[in-house]
Amino acid sequence: MGDFRVLEIKQSVFADNEKRASELRKELKEKKVFLLNLMSSPGSGKTTTLSRTIDQLKNELKIGVMEADIDSDVDAETISQLGVKAIQLHTGGMCHLDADMTRQGLEGLECGELDLVVLENVGNLVCPAEFDTGAVKNAMILSVPEGDDKPLKYPLMFSICDVVLINKIDVLPYFDFDMEQCRRNILKRNPNAIIIPICARTGEGTEAWADWLREEVKAWQKAERS
Amino acid sequence: MGDFRVLEIKQSVFADNEKRASELRKELKEKKVFLLNLMSSPGSGKTTTLSRTIDQLKNELKIGVMEADIDSDVDAETISQLGVKAIQLHTGGMCHLDADMTRQGLEGLECGELDLVVLENVGNLVCPAEFDTGAVKNAMILSVPEGDDKPLKYPLMFSICDVVLINKIDVLPYFDFDMEQCRRNILKRNPNAIIIPICARTGEGTEAWADWLREEVKAWQKAERS
Repeated sequence: MGDFRVLEIKQSVFADNEKRASELRKELKEKKVFLLNLMSSPGSGKTTTLSRTIDQLKNELKIGVMEADIDSDVDAETISQLGVKAIQLHTGGMCHLDADMTRQGLEGLECGELDLVVLENVGNLVCPAEFDTGAVKNAMILSVPEGDDKPLKYPLMFSICDVVLINKIDVLPYFDFDMEQCRRNILKRNPNAIIIPICARTGEGTEAWADWLREEVKAWQKAERS
Repeated sequence: MGDFRVLEIKQSVFADNEKRASELRKELKEKKVFLLNLMSSPGSGKTTTLSRTIDQLKNELKIGVMEADIDSDVDAETISQLGVKAIQLHTGGMCHLDADMTRQGLEGLECGELDLVVLENVGNLVCPAEFDTGAVKNAMILSVPEGDDKPLKYPLMFSICDVVLINKIDVLPYFDFDMEQCRRNILKRNPNAIIIPICARTGEGTEAWADWLREEVKAWQKAERS
């Protein structure tokens, strides 16, 4: 058994989420903690991708992970066995995390000494896109079996993400998925999106992702306070 | 181009959704219209499954389809080409449909002469489970690439569905998906769930699903008003 806590998150009652998210980001800047908000549909490979990312970065960065789920501890169990700090956040039915809920998780994780905290958000392409968690960057995973038309159907999610990982490229031969069409659909929503095709299971392409994340963490920690 | 309308759904302001759902169900009973609420994650194959179902039942039943999406018309376009009545519902960012929103769709569809109306709900395993749409039965699709652990992570969705279709069984050899474990996980959430493995793309297993749906529609139309 891995070692992790389970935290029952309280639904926040604050209407001013954007202000609270900005405040949280400012505090994280002072603490030199980089918070990544990782989103996707259920089953597109967030936990596997995260495991791979931890393997690639854990010798260089002190990493913590917050696993948000409506129920179950399976993800925190998996992640905690990789030797990083992990906490399971139970949202009690809530379909997303906002800045205050994220703050509860960060306090539970005691993140002060960490370089990188990854929030694995609830599996959902709709609601998490609507709430700024206070993260420094947003990333999402779209997996090949979901189809190349998803940027057309879930526009907000694709427009707010700095990086889109296209996962499960090992099964491209078995699905009707057009990578170039997918790129065009993503860029239509977000011309600045960084798009990285990966296979989290085999590791293919994940170095480019780890490189991007490493650079972002270092830039965040170095930059003068704004 | 298929022939379909696009309806911009208004967010409902009613707190008494359960009562409104019951009323809608009662009206559908009087009109002998069977409403099926079809739910799943993004990309698990709702539209392909629905196309297959329409092919199998359209000579026996008058069918209408409501395609709910945050944005885009790609699904209504696909469905309307199958020669059934289709309407695209735009939810304007909303992550689910409730009974009043469903009623707006039914009115737009002019469902009075239909035997079966399928509501293809927003792709989301969380929020749609929390709102009774007024449907007679709920069905959901879990696709093999999403993983056999999803009933543990999205308990409410699995507990409210009468039928769980396990789609994309043609790619079972390429994924770490244990069908028996999946069945156990589903039945833990819902001991009465009917579980039907299918491949919507090839048609495998879809006859059992069409048989179940045909029987339910006939039973609904025959039964005395309660």
